[in-house]
Order: sequence, then C-alpha cells, then structure tokens
Amino acid sequence: MALFAPPQRLELASGKTFGPVNVAYETLGTLSPAKDNAIFICHALTGDAHVAGRYGEEDDKPGWWDAFVGAGKGIDTNRYFVICANVLGGCQGTTGPESPNPENGAPYGREFPFITVADMVRVHKALVQELGITRLLAVVGGSLGGMQVLEWAARYPESIASAIVLASSPRLNAQALAFDKVGRRAIVTDPCFRDGNYYGHEEKPRFGLALARMIAHITYLSDKAIEMKFGRRLQHSDELTYDLLQETEFQIESYLDYQGKRFVERFDANSYLLLTRAMDYFDLEAEHGPMSRCLGKTDARFLVVSYSKDWLFPTAESKMIVRALLEARRDVTYAELESDHGHDAFLIESEIPKLTQLVRPFLETTFRRIAD
Amino acid sequence: MALFAPPQRLELASGKTFGPVNVAYETLGTLSPAKDNAIFICHALTGDAHVAGRYGEEDDKPGWWDAFVGAGKGIDTNRYFVICANVLGGCQGTTGPESPNPENGAPYGREFPFITVADMVRVHKALVQELGITRLLAVVGGSLGGMQVLEWAARYPESIASAIVLASSPRLNAQALAFDKVGRRAIVTDPCFRDGNYYGHEEKPRFGLALARMIAHITYLSDKAIEMKFGRRLQHSDELTYDLLQETEFQIESYLDYQGKRFVERFDANSYLLLTRAMDYFDLEAEHGPMSRCLGKTDARFLVVSYSKDWLFPTAESKMIVRALLEARRDVTYAELESDHGHDAFLIESEIPKLTQLVRPFLETTFRRIAD
Repeated sequence: MALFAPPQRLELASGKTFGPVNVAYETLGTLSPAKDNAIFICHALTGDAHVAGRYGEEDDKPGWWDAFVGAGKGIDTNRYFVICANVLGGCQGTTGPESPNPENGAPYGREFPFITVADMVRVHKALVQELGITRLLAVVGGSLGGMQVLEWAARYPESIASAIVLASSPRLNAQALAFDKVGRRAIVTDPCFRDGNYYGHEEKPRFGLALARMIAHITYLSDKAIEMKFGRRLQHSDELTYDLLQETEFQIESYLDYQGKRFVERFDANSYLLLTRAMDYFDLEAEHGPMSRCLGKTDARFLVVSYSKDWLFPTAESKMIVRALLEARRDVTYAELESDHGHDAFLIESEIPKLTQLVRPFLETTFRRIAD
Repeated sequence: MALFAPPQRLELASGKTFGPVNVAYETLGTLSPAKDNAIFICHALTGDAHVAGRYGEEDDKPGWWDAFVGAGKGIDTNRYFVICANVLGGCQGTTGPESPNPENGAPYGREFPFITVADMVRVHKALVQELGITRLLAVVGGSLGGMQVLEWAARYPESIASAIVLASSPRLNAQALAFDKVGRRAIVTDPCFRDGNYYGHEEKPRFGLALARMIAHITYLSDKAIEMKFGRRLQHSDELTYDLLQETEFQIESYLDYQGKRFVERFDANSYLLLTRAMDYFDLEAEHGPMSRCLGKTDARFLVVSYSKDWLFPTAESKMIVRALLEARRDVTYAELESDHGHDAFLIESEIPKLTQLVRPFLETTFRRIAD
C-alpha cells in the first residue's frame, strides 16, 4: 500500500521527512464488521510480511510464524484478522534502501534516510488506519518486534487493546550493542560494500553480510542448545585434517557457514545496517520518559514473555517492563518460559505450544473485555 | 634458543616434522643449585614471553602479568626461577608463520605447518630440558595457557611437581568453537589476506584481524562488566547523530574499535589463525584418554581456578577437571573466584590479589613437599 505520498511525507525521528512509502503487508482471517478483531504482528530483524500460510500448493515454505498463526492456532485466524507488514527500511517489499528512489529511478542506497523503531511504527500505524482500524485487539512481536510493540503502546496508547511482548527489552544492553557493532563492521569493511552503493555492481558485500549473520546467529542460540546440537562433532569424517584451510572441520562451523550463505540470498546489506542501528537506538525511556509513566498511558492489557536461556534479551530486561507496568497499576501477565533454546525460542516450532497456551486465553479475555 | 635443528626435527601432532625452531623466552629470578625452584608460565592466545618486569627505565609498559609475577608477588621471583616462552606458531619471537623459512629466507606464510597445543608444549619441554631442568616446581597458565598446563600434565607427568590451571577447559565447547570460527572467517575473507601470503604486500589483512579481535574481545568480558563500564553511554556528545556512517556512536563501539586497532599493530593474522585453530583442536580426553586416567599419571598437585562470570570457559568445565582429579585420588585445590570480570579476570590487575592468596601458599606447600 502506498502511503506518505507527497505532500504528506513521513516525519522521521531524525527530523527529516521521507516519502512515498510503499508498505508490503499480508492479512489472514476476516475483519469483523465492528473492526474489533484485528491483530498486528511486528516481525523481528530479518522477518517479513509473510507471517503464516503458503502462497499456493507449489509453495514449499510457509510463513515464518506458521506454527503460531493460522486457523485454530495460537493466533487463531478463524477468529481474528491478522495483519503483518514488512518494516520501513527492510528489503522484503516495504520501501527500503534497495527500492528505487522515485526522483531518479535508481536504488536509494546510501541516500536512504536513517530510521528508528518509532519510524517503523509510524508507518504501520498509518497502514492500520488506512485499513479502517482505529483500535487493534493486539499488537504482538518478539525481539525487535517486541520493541515495536512497546513503541506502539507508548506512542499510540489508545489504539491498542493489548500488547504481547516476547523475548524483548526496552533497550539493548552493552553486550548486545557490541555484537551489533561487530556485525555492521563486517559489512562496512567488505570492499564490495562500496559505502552502500553496491546495487549497480555485480559483486555484493556477501562475505561481510554472511559474517554479520553468523555472529548474530551465535547470539540467538543458547550455549546449551548449540552444545547439544553440535558439540565438537566433526563435519567430514572421524579424523581431524590438520589443515588450516579446512574451515568446516567442526559441524558447528559448517552450520554457521550455511546460515551465512542462506541469509545473503534473501537479505540486503544496507537494510541490515539500518535495522540493527534502529535496534541499537531504541530506548523506550530515553524517548518517552520513565516506563511506568509512558506505558501507563495505555489501558491495554500486557503479556510479557521471556525465555530462560535467552542471553541476548535476558529475562531481567523483560522483568523491568513488568515491574514498570505493575507500578503503573496496569494489567500485566508475565511468564518466563523454560527453554533450552536461546533468544530464537519464540520462533522455534517446538516452543510454540507453550506460547500458544499463554496467548490464546490472553487474546480471548481481551476480546471478551472489549466486547463488553 | 635454537632447538630442533636438523637432523633432530620436531615431530608434530599432524605427523609432519618441522625445524629449526627458535624459542623466544625470558627468565626472572635465580635457578637454585638443586634446580628445583623453576616455574614455567604458559601464556594465553595473544601473550608473549615478556611475562613481567620492564626492559629498562625507558620501558613504559611492563610484562603482561606484572601484577602477579615479581619480587614478593604471587609468583615470587625472590624465591622461584620463572620461565616464560612464546609459543610455537606465535609472532612474538618464537618461530611462526612470519619467521623466515631458512630454505629461502622468505616468511613461511602458508608454508608454516599446522600446530597443536601438544606441539607448543613439546617445544617448551625441550627448552626446559636445555635449561637443565628435569622437573618443574609448577606449570602455570590461564585460558590457552591452562590448556598447555593440562597437556604438560598428561604428556610429561613426571616432569612437573604442580599444575595451576586458570580459567581454562579440557576442550572448547561448541559456542567457543563458533566464536573462533567467525573470527577466522573475518580474516580469511579479507582480500588483503591473500591466502596467507600477505607478507610481501604493503596491505595487511588489518580489517579482518581487527574484527576477529573485536569479536573475541566481547567474549572475554562479562555482560555485567561491559554494562557497568559502558552501558549505553554515547561517545561523542549527549545527542544521537542519526547518521549510519557514525560507527562509534556508543562508547562500547569506540572501545571495540580501539581494541581492534591496537591488536593489529602487535599481532600477525596467520599466527591468529594457527593459534585459535590449535585451541579448537585441543581435546585432552580425545588425545590422552579419560581425564581421570591421563591426569592420574602425574603425582603433581593441582590448583584449578575458574571465574564466576567467565562464559567462554565456564566454571562447569573447570569442575570437570577437578572431578577427574578427585576420581584419580590426586591432590587438587579448586576455587571459583567471584568476579564481575569475565574470562579476562585472570589477567586483570584488580583480580590479582585474590589469585595471589591462593597461589602463594600453594607454591610454598609444593616447594616444601618436594624439598622433604
């Protein structure tokens, strides 16, 4: 959907304006006549609008949260109208650095403006409004998606009836900033990056982007998960090769290489820089004041979920949100789910039943309350 | 000291032979007439032979363990004769990939053989023997240095009276392998690396090596240490720049850049590849059989120390060593030291007093026992 076409340009957090913005979004289920059953799903760093379902029988891979979203599932598309949109600055359909600049038809590249989580949410709010929805039954998201949920609550307190924040935080800690930094460093020091203007060139900053993904991927997994899955098992044989050029001696190495390779096929390096920086910048309290105040402005019900072995967005950071909501006398449910998976747990199929057990009744209660 | 000159070449774990090896080493204190007061210190990944002291009044930086080793210190050079040698494959004086190949005078580069922790220890054992010492009072080391200590104990059980293993492990876990892998990947994908033959070129793989160091450096610090030291503080002003090219917006970013830059001035990329791979390969039990058996061969006393917030070499891995020693009915003292620092704690000056309290009496008791 085309939004912010001149003269209504989007006012960005940086002070600049930008437009037009094309938003790639998908919907599942049916919007009720009262328009009171809409749920907006915020995707994480490298997600997209294709949250669930298949495009056809030929489609061999369903959406990224297919185990959780669909008919009869945790977010039941028989009852709710689900919207998921790609974020501003992304590379999966919504306007981003890879998109053509209407002024000259060439990809924006480095001309693309700096964006923040607030900017992403501004765009999604405009989309929801265009769809004729004044108040969402729920906004839901994990990780960077959870940051967007918090931003929705603080920025548009009256437009949400509930908020579901998974494996997230009101701001990245120093260690998470550090990992983001080295990932971006891998990209910008790749000679093929060419200061972000690589679109016209055959060589893309593949090595840098793959490396950034590999580093980040380690932080998404718990030490226990990676130990159980790979340990010190060798990839090619039972014998060590004593060869320094053998970069995939251990299975974990081969796995990381594979993750890196797969990622560069689907993601744009400039988007990766922009979105990780938006994550770094996100600081709910710096932007909106003390959490108990800024989250207290909404009467939305909250469900906050953290995962026991998530070391990128540790449980303590979810508890900060919960404490602030309690202080503000808001309605909040909190669960730390036990899982050997780390940060990625909210995306992992085997962990979805536990999440479903929490989310289904939470949504039902919310829906009943607003119907009353 | 020149060792393994033809025809006595060093037999490597890989099956190849290599020589000659020049070993850079330093000594402190005086060897007793009975030659029973010698302590060998094994340095960690990027350390060197200059363990303590200054080369002269002009020298503005003392050795890397100066707070711990010296007259009246934890390892008291008034009483003990201290030896520290750079490892095989390193770049601080002992023969490594940067050294000239005597066959043609050019640096070995990729011609340098694959080496293991056992190979490093073989060289150091030969050095100790050349110095006329049959039995060391102690072998001491942290991290990769601790791995060398374990190797000494398993390979040369009669040649040590005690072993001090700090912040170490009998083998890297999968997460540690993963971090080593991405660090090496940063180096080998740097176009200036040229498959390891970069010595003749003006451009060195600086970006890759710096990035490898930055990644590793994160793993040396605890999340708490990094949070307290940097948090989300900005580097340049109180205002965010909203500039994607500003790579040092946060203090933690500037700090990592600095660590990377400083490192490339003193370290060689090929050595980094070799030594991290040697660390990956180290697996005491795979090489020598069950720990209770292979460590049970020595009657050396053990002191094993781990640090509470070390997530690269977690406490649990030190406990594996301790359990095996107890099973073998060996004399072992174990302490988990509380510290907000992570893996780096054994090197950090403010943590040295706690270490000193353990090591001084341990060495005194060992010395008294062998004198009896």
